[in-house]
Amino acid sequence: MRRARRVATLTSFKVVDVLEAVERLQSQGRDIVRLEAGQPAFATPARVVEATRRALAEERTRYTSALGIEPLREAIADFYRWRHGLTLDPARIAVTTGSSAALALLGDLLIEPGDGVVLTDPGYPCNANFVRRAGGEPQWIPVVAEQGYRLTAAAVAGHWRANTVSAWLASPANPTGAVLDADALGELAAEVSRRRGTLVVDEIYHGLIYDGPETSVLEVAADAFVINSFSKYFGMTGWRLGWLVAPQAAMGDLNTLAQNFYISPSSIAQHAALAALHPEVLAELEARREELRCRRDFLVAALRELGFAIPRVPAGGLYVYAGIDGLADDSEAFCREMLERAGVAFTPGTDFGTHRARQCVRFSYTEPLPRLELAVERLRLALAQR
Amino acid sequence: MRRARRVATLTSFKVVDVLEAVERLQSQGRDIVRLEAGQPAFATPARVVEATRRALAEERTRYTSALGIEPLREAIADFYRWRHGLTLDPARIAVTTGSSAALALLGDLLIEPGDGVVLTDPGYPCNANFVRRAGGEPQWIPVVAEQGYRLTAAAVAGHWRANTVSAWLASPANPTGAVLDADALGELAAEVSRRRGTLVVDEIYHGLIYDGPETSVLEVAADAFVINSFSKYFGMTGWRLGWLVAPQAAMGDLNTLAQNFYISPSSIAQHAALAALHPEVLAELEARREELRCRRDFLVAALRELGFAIPRVPAGGLYVYAGIDGLADDSEAFCREMLERAGVAFTPGTDFGTHRARQCVRFSYTEPLPRLELAVERLRLALAQR
Repeated sequence: MRRARRVATLTSFKVVDVLEAVERLQSQGRDIVRLEAGQPAFATPARVVEATRRALAEERTRYTSALGIEPLREAIADFYRWRHGLTLDPARIAVTTGSSAALALLGDLLIEPGDGVVLTDPGYPCNANFVRRAGGEPQWIPVVAEQGYRLTAAAVAGHWRANTVSAWLASPANPTGAVLDADALGELAAEVSRRRGTLVVDEIYHGLIYDGPETSVLEVAADAFVINSFSKYFGMTGWRLGWLVAPQAAMGDLNTLAQNFYISPSSIAQHAALAALHPEVLAELEARREELRCRRDFLVAALRELGFAIPRVPAGGLYVYAGIDGLADDSEAFCREMLERAGVAFTPGTDFGTHRARQCVRFSYTEPLPRLELAVERLRLALAQR
Repeated sequence: MRRARRVATLTSFKVVDVLEAVERLQSQGRDIVRLEAGQPAFATPARVVEATRRALAEERTRYTSALGIEPLREAIADFYRWRHGLTLDPARIAVTTGSSAALALLGDLLIEPGDGVVLTDPGYPCNANFVRRAGGEPQWIPVVAEQGYRLTAAAVAGHWRANTVSAWLASPANPTGAVLDADALGELAAEVSRRRGTLVVDEIYHGLIYDGPETSVLEVAADAFVINSFSKYFGMTGWRLGWLVAPQAAMGDLNTLAQNFYISPSSIAQHAALAALHPEVLAELEARREELRCRRDFLVAALRELGFAIPRVPAGGLYVYAGIDGLADDSEAFCREMLERAGVAFTPGTDFGTHRARQCVRFSYTEPLPRLELAVERLRLALAQR
């Protein structure tokens, strides 16, 4: 069986082990509170459903332009005007098959074999694999609880090596929920620019910031590459649609890459997403953000009470990244144990990196409050019985 | 502006120039008969529309397993039983984001930097770019009109080099419509196997064979990799859904690759595709095949009468690949000229390779018969006036 060497360098999702165990238990009739995934379980907004039905009726089921339909690119540009006061040329926006496709396109565009890319540890696990696929070398920068898990320009400077060409980071970050403010983003952009590197910022948890202002890196660095998605804030995970904002000079190459490797994003999904950018839907999503804030506040306080270490409340995203030092000494074993004994599913830190990964776990707060309360009650009992 | 070297090795679609010219002329109010693309313009079957509406109502809008939902993988396996008498384990089927994702996964899985992959010239233009992205070297085998554009085992043997690891071919082929029968596929598989290579067969035009039986390479080579799609026979281009059949031993790696680089295919599209595999819809699609056969027969005869060289009627697919030797000496200039003067859009051979590419053009017969008649009449006039 032929297998290119790159395949052996890729990591798979540890959460899959959790998922399989969850499904086994559920098939036995066990009720499991599922806090392991990052999918907000809200209903699809009526306007999005209606737009999808209309797109079907109008047979909008053909290939589109590789970088997406013009009205959607324009609506995304308008979204930046409304949210960030930024004027973006829609020609700089590429609609992509989820943020996954945006990351793949950037790997192809920016990374030569042997190039280094600095990444946070912990961070979104696939980033390193996109780098490896392009032949690049992930270069980890640990981010620590004591600094609110925030990546700093000083850390980037300290980890930049001769072969480093790019820094990929996220704000809000997965799994930590750390949010970078305008000053921090500006300093990072300046540091990367000073080293003639390329800055890539994953903003897929934008719209889910609960404390403080929301800054796009484009406000402080017009030449950064920005990844975003309809999955998280818009709650459209399974539609597989995202976007990329890139410097104008990159758009020709991105078009060639997207044509060849994707042909086009889903037409139906693009029409659905266009409806999701309507002010009426955005108002609905803002209400959901308030609901998510309540869930976060409840979960952080309750977990702290149970003995989990959460030095700072995560300012954004969908997750609480919690230390288990007083509770257990191996996150993978602890997740298995709590799933079996308490019927609560969450994810070991080892899915997101290696730095203190066995001492941390990730809870998502995408489930409704009564389910979160149930999860906490079950954990309380299970921990008391040890 | 940073740009990895691989980007410069990629070819872009020549047809885009045609598309842009078409849109310019249409925006001036010109009626253009569009024979440049491969999208059958049939309505979405009612059952598929209904299934999509139901999937929306049931909120089937979340991530699915990376290799697709079980019912769809099972239905695809059933499809092979019904069409080819093959019993396939659904676990060997990966649902992909179009056949584009299947090609990308195979590039990642099978090709090391420096590996050679034999490809037909002409052929689907993106294949070479998937090979290049993985660091591989496309190795062209010209296929010629005199042999019905069919790739032979002897040609593969003649072009196999020390670094060659794989052969990628299509049956029915784009742009030529050549179909390989069981004997030809068996000989190709044996030749590739003798050289310890991996055989990849693109069967995305299966279901669109008009003469003779339809053979899947899996009938003669159980260990081949097969690519297929809901785009062509099923007419679902813009939904971006396809599949891959692979040896069991490859499925773990394909799952890791798919998880990391795609997360999952579109959930809504998977539920739509499941409905498309219903016997009622398949009966509808068979009727469409008859309609496409009529269009092909009309177009081949009419183009021959106009002086285009079509030595053999293409046995499958959606295209007529025609020589222009008596008519013009440069396919790109000829396509531009006929678009401007006759209002008929078709594609230069240069989009599909280099072998006799300036002497050939591709017409698709996806438009209804009256439009094809109009196209022929316009071409007749334009050619007479030269």
